[in-house]
Amino acid sequence: MISTEIRRAAVLGCGLIGASVALALRRTGVHVTLSDRDPYAVRKAERMGAGTASARGDRPADVVIIATPPSTVPGVLREAQDRGLGRVYTDVASTKAGILAEAEAAGCDVSVYVPGHPMAGGESSGPGAARADLFAGRRWALCPHPATRPDAVRLVTELVALCGAEHRLVRPDAHDRVTAAVSHVPHLVAAALAARFAGADETTLALAGQGLRDVTRIAGGSPDLWCDILRQNAGPIAEVLDAVVRDLTEVASALRGADPGAFGASGVPGASGVSGMTGAAGTPGALAGLLVRGNRGRALLAGARPAGVAGGHPAAPKAAA
Amino acid sequence: MISTEIRRAAVLGCGLIGASVALALRRTGVHVTLSDRDPYAVRKAERMGAGTASARGDRPADVVIIATPPSTVPGVLREAQDRGLGRVYTDVASTKAGILAEAEAAGCDVSVYVPGHPMAGGESSGPGAARADLFAGRRWALCPHPATRPDAVRLVTELVALCGAEHRLVRPDAHDRVTAAVSHVPHLVAAALAARFAGADETTLALAGQGLRDVTRIAGGSPDLWCDILRQNAGPIAEVLDAVVRDLTEVASALRGADPGAFGASGVPGASGVSGMTGAAGTPGALAGLLVRGNRGRALLAGARPAGVAGGHPAAPKAAA
Repeated sequence: MISTEIRRAAVLGCGLIGASVALALRRTGVHVTLSDRDPYAVRKAERMGAGTASARGDRPADVVIIATPPSTVPGVLREAQDRGLGRVYTDVASTKAGILAEAEAAGCDVSVYVPGHPMAGGESSGPGAARADLFAGRRWALCPHPATRPDAVRLVTELVALCGAEHRLVRPDAHDRVTAAVSHVPHLVAAALAARFAGADETTLALAGQGLRDVTRIAGGSPDLWCDILRQNAGPIAEVLDAVVRDLTEVASALRGADPGAFGASGVPGASGVSGMTGAAGTPGALAGLLVRGNRGRALLAGARPAGVAGGHPAAPKAAA
Repeated sequence: MISTEIRRAAVLGCGLIGASVALALRRTGVHVTLSDRDPYAVRKAERMGAGTASARGDRPADVVIIATPPSTVPGVLREAQDRGLGRVYTDVASTKAGILAEAEAAGCDVSVYVPGHPMAGGESSGPGAARADLFAGRRWALCPHPATRPDAVRLVTELVALCGAEHRLVRPDAHDRVTAAVSHVPHLVAAALAARFAGADETTLALAGQGLRDVTRIAGGSPDLWCDILRQNAGPIAEVLDAVVRDLTEVASALRGADPGAFGASGVPGASGVSGMTGAAGTPGALAGLLVRGNRGRALLAGARPAGVAGGHPAAPKAAA
């Protein structure tokens, strides 16, 4: 049992994330009120056991969770604070620096606002896709302002723990750079790949395998919501996107034969016999270079410690020198 | 039980695919001999129960499976036919047109050669990663030459069935165009994304979630083998890659504000309130357009009928007008 001061929570926005937070909190006995501009979403979330519709005269919540699209967060926060909906406020948007700056500019009280971002989601949206365990074992970034009160940060770390996640304090601008690389650009790249199949014929679909399904899974997200997210983090995203485009352009040009070294000095490095099990390429050239860097990045991502698991890199030798 | 004439098979190349074919055949009682230029790979496959090492004086096999890197297939085929290793020959390389043309040019007997490509694999390589069920429920392209004998094609379709897969006849050039889109370009794109994390810091890795792990999973493949594969299919790959690069370049430029319509006419389409659950964007602009096309392609890929399942698109309404 997590020791917490959180008795009452108000969730504003009953999409996938908002309704999942509500379900997770209900499971721990927290009283949850729900609101959304779409009455259907509130009713759906209520029927799923995520809480009860908010009403005039509700007592102020210990924590208010703003789970609306990124661009709406500063306005919703300002209005919620004006109406005195709670003691402490947080949000779940996947961009942070711009929202925090806008919230300050809009006159919000940032001393009780703890910007947050759970690293979880799904290709489905809406309360119907919500799950109480959506955040179990996931990380949840918290990006407080220097002026945010420590007790507000502590309360929101309790909220994160009640949802089964592990909080991580990150500066807002660092969060946005990291999120561009780990979430926003992967989404765009998955979309650019999936877009190739928008008019795919039956043979193409028949030969599509699990690899392609994995690579394009996240391209199923809502275009509306993602336009909003991407615009909020345009600068950091464009920078990472440029690097991806540069790599792919080099490879395309190498494949066209513009770069005689593209395949390494030996043509087929290490693959001159009847074994497909060759080791690292270690060859120059755009193509081999990209594949080797891809291997390295993938190994780091695959080996990164999941939240809630003690110890270091699982692939690291126990007695490394 | 599948009725088959296949009693003896020879597997040349004991990597992931070759050893998995051998394991699948052994399970159905076929006698399998194994060879590889790497004696360790043969011993490993033997210990896993994939068959016995080939020896001088082995009786000719009913079918010879060439599971060596793409660029080596024509030479291995020619040598195997010269030595009379079997009645019918097939391979498992993920490119077809170039190999078939080279095999013809090398004087191979294409009347008994059925080029093949199982649509299965994994981020691991080598016999240690092999599994008897690697091909279960997967499709397996067969791309015979006009001169290939029908009884040879029939025998290789039996091989595919013994491995639990569903064969599909495709023209070699069509196969290569489709494979560029469904396999080769996704591999390069996954590598270009994963490459961004080759020197990632701890905070970045901590915030990386399941979405990114899915998108980059296939980037774990062997650079050597993939260099070989990609070179064999350079033209079709470069074409698909160009389209991906064009889309991503447009989006990067839209994000930098060069295109005022990039986010659609209304700024945040449909996301003006406290709901994240908006529908299709339906707005112009590079960004929204890409996300909507990505949604369409993803829906087709997710809904495509898996091999071995009867009926049409699973998401199609039962009583569509």
